[in-house]
Amino acid sequence: MSQSAASTSDPARTIAQAAKAAFEASQLVPSSERVNALHEIRKELDNAKAEILEANRKDLQAAQAEVDAGRMSESLLKRLDLTKGDKWDSMLQGVTDVAELPDPTGIVTYATELDNDLELYRVSCPIGVLLVIFEARPEVVVNIAALAIKSGNAAILKGGKESSETAQLLSRAIQTALAKTSIPSTYIQAVQTRAEVSALLEMDQYIDLVIPRGSNSLVRNIQNSTRIPVMGHADGLCAVYLDEAADPEKAVRVTVDSKIDYPAACNSAETLIVHESLLSTIWPKVAQALLDADVQLRCDEATLSALASLSPAPSKLATHVRASTPEDYRTEHLALVLSVRAVPSLSAAVAHINAHSSHHTDCIVSEDARAASVFCRGVDSAGTFVNASTRFADGFRYGFGTEVGISTGRIHARGPVGLDGLVVYKYMLRSTGPAGHVVGEFGVGAGKKQYKHARIDATSVPF
Amino acid sequence: MSQSAASTSDPARTIAQAAKAAFEASQLVPSSERVNALHEIRKELDNAKAEILEANRKDLQAAQAEVDAGRMSESLLKRLDLTKGDKWDSMLQGVTDVAELPDPTGIVTYATELDNDLELYRVSCPIGVLLVIFEARPEVVVNIAALAIKSGNAAILKGGKESSETAQLLSRAIQTALAKTSIPSTYIQAVQTRAEVSALLEMDQYIDLVIPRGSNSLVRNIQNSTRIPVMGHADGLCAVYLDEAADPEKAVRVTVDSKIDYPAACNSAETLIVHESLLSTIWPKVAQALLDADVQLRCDEATLSALASLSPAPSKLATHVRASTPEDYRTEHLALVLSVRAVPSLSAAVAHINAHSSHHTDCIVSEDARAASVFCRGVDSAGTFVNASTRFADGFRYGFGTEVGISTGRIHARGPVGLDGLVVYKYMLRSTGPAGHVVGEFGVGAGKKQYKHARIDATSVPF
Repeated sequence: MSQSAASTSDPARTIAQAAKAAFEASQLVPSSERVNALHEIRKELDNAKAEILEANRKDLQAAQAEVDAGRMSESLLKRLDLTKGDKWDSMLQGVTDVAELPDPTGIVTYATELDNDLELYRVSCPIGVLLVIFEARPEVVVNIAALAIKSGNAAILKGGKESSETAQLLSRAIQTALAKTSIPSTYIQAVQTRAEVSALLEMDQYIDLVIPRGSNSLVRNIQNSTRIPVMGHADGLCAVYLDEAADPEKAVRVTVDSKIDYPAACNSAETLIVHESLLSTIWPKVAQALLDADVQLRCDEATLSALASLSPAPSKLATHVRASTPEDYRTEHLALVLSVRAVPSLSAAVAHINAHSSHHTDCIVSEDARAASVFCRGVDSAGTFVNASTRFADGFRYGFGTEVGISTGRIHARGPVGLDGLVVYKYMLRSTGPAGHVVGEFGVGAGKKQYKHARIDATSVPF
Repeated sequence: MSQSAASTSDPARTIAQAAKAAFEASQLVPSSERVNALHEIRKELDNAKAEILEANRKDLQAAQAEVDAGRMSESLLKRLDLTKGDKWDSMLQGVTDVAELPDPTGIVTYATELDNDLELYRVSCPIGVLLVIFEARPEVVVNIAALAIKSGNAAILKGGKESSETAQLLSRAIQTALAKTSIPSTYIQAVQTRAEVSALLEMDQYIDLVIPRGSNSLVRNIQNSTRIPVMGHADGLCAVYLDEAADPEKAVRVTVDSKIDYPAACNSAETLIVHESLLSTIWPKVAQALLDADVQLRCDEATLSALASLSPAPSKLATHVRASTPEDYRTEHLALVLSVRAVPSLSAAVAHINAHSSHHTDCIVSEDARAASVFCRGVDSAGTFVNASTRFADGFRYGFGTEVGISTGRIHARGPVGLDGLVVYKYMLRSTGPAGHVVGEFGVGAGKKQYKHARIDATSVPF
């Protein structure tokens, strides 16, 4: 009683309750209807294209004023623009792509007969209500809505205020499309203010998972202020280690690609660790290739003096190379800057990475299979790579079709997260025995039954 | 520098750092050595049996004084006693049983070739450092240590203060045994005070998962005071629903077993929901069976008047049956008390359960396959059962061999948690191409490569 009375005066609670109710109602809707909903969403977005792009123009005008006043960066402004290149079309294509991915729900992952006529099934199912908090790019509304619907989760979305006009029309189009299906239109809801988010973070009775997509500090602030589990993506402090047995060409190619392919991405390398036996051989080649690509190097004493003692000196030595500070090895540069240090051994490299990395993705360049194996097992990161760029750490590249985000957490989902990361499981147990099944019949002693635990070969639940 | 300086004056930090270091070091130890460690632990516990039981006598004496002073319950005292029945032997057998379970680590769950000579493996691995907080029973130290070691996780254990003498000697024996192996002896550590636990809950850089085994309020307090993920077990508010199409015998047997088999357990039924068509048929039979088993009934108006109108009146009607309050349907009685209500439909039963249950385990008694299917999908609980007692919700009964706990959380692990719940995964990527692999070679356009995503059939990582 007090709850429903409160709901009328508490908009965040009303939203959260509606999301939970929509989720519960959707559990009886077949998953084919979720695919149908995605096709309806694509159609409705196409119908509403003119209005949405008009709203996007308003957001862009407001943003341009902020840029002119020096309060917003050009790069943020660019991310707002839905008309840029093929962004609109690829947003729509993304909805269709998600619709066509395999259904992550209803999959039996464990099935066993506990007794004659008593079958247990563990079956994948949605988590429940997601609260997704993200930054500027408005198309994320559509991406996340598609992922949530495909996996059977209801979602409450909070985007950046810079894209609020666009995001409102995108979510309105999604709700209009849902209203044409048997999925409740409150399945996907948008909120606009930080105050609403704060109130929602209190509602662990309605919201089951928070997914913040943004900065490290955003993730930690949210973790500090909620009992709800958080699937977060903190920083990406990735390292490349050039082993004693590194191949020179691979060392150059993998290091350069890891750093320069997309320096602002979380899977770019921020630290290069060089085995000291390479200081006068491979390291100068790698350094020159990095300098040629305009990378700034922050070097420890050994790697710095190895470059300084070269004759002729590497080009850009004076402008692009300087001594590192301890802080450099804990810094996510997100720019053409690389921290470099030498180590005496593989185990020192592993220890450096475990102490400094963000446990995202780290790479060894080596021709020594044993060293590769030690590195892959000893480095405690979501991705451990051999002779391959850290930039491969990505849901699309891994073959997931799309990506919910990259988790730097260590439970539930780790590394690039596909639709699999948005499901959990439940256990279904069915007795078809003549008198049902009770626990009191099992146990030790005369006349007691024993558990059978005979594996059942099943891919779906038969009831 | 500042961190290691701090560690000397901060015992909790020293413990947490040692646990993380032990975990990292153990990653290069083959899993067979973890099995060996479990056998050493069993031997060492046998060696130290006399001293451990002497310490247990001290705990029991102190507890007896508390009981005599009325500050502790008899049942808590009984749980402390390691000499009772076959408790000692079954504690030791448990260590051997865990040693013999299949290794949950090193299992490949996804493997795909991203390109020729570029293979990706997702492989199960330990989570890291566990902080396990539990109540009185001292043998939990040994159970949890065995589960942590088997799954490759380091653990910090905090038991109830009532068993502290016993727990100290048990953990000393475990450390003595570990010292005979290549697993660091700080792999398993015990802490004694709440202040240490509070300090540890701050250390998300060293501790990866908190597992509180205790009351609902313990779990919520911990969730409120840490950024570390919590795998908690809140209350078990389980319901049995007697459907319109219930079989009378199954209704009686399943309801009675769910309530009386072990009323203090979290998987016991606390609520009975009766379809109103059964009020004068099956309900009186079920009620009489419950009353015969000395169960107190808290009934809504419909179920109460159905009993009151019977002639002759059910025995114990006057002493054991009374009107319910709304609070009864939110109460985990943990005793021979059952809340009862009537509903007009299956969907009303599902709605009641979703609004009131703790999403642990709920059961439908029905001969109607469609009703069973709707119930199992519509009820949003970790276990949804058909014609089977809620008491089957248990790791041993499910066939997991042993149980870490029962999770009422909705991510990572849900319901009874076996060793699988103590692992996560990492991605290993290996290029065996002649020049390593870089992302810059892939993409759209002339000369660019496409991702291959060809499934690899593998059960373990080949490097």
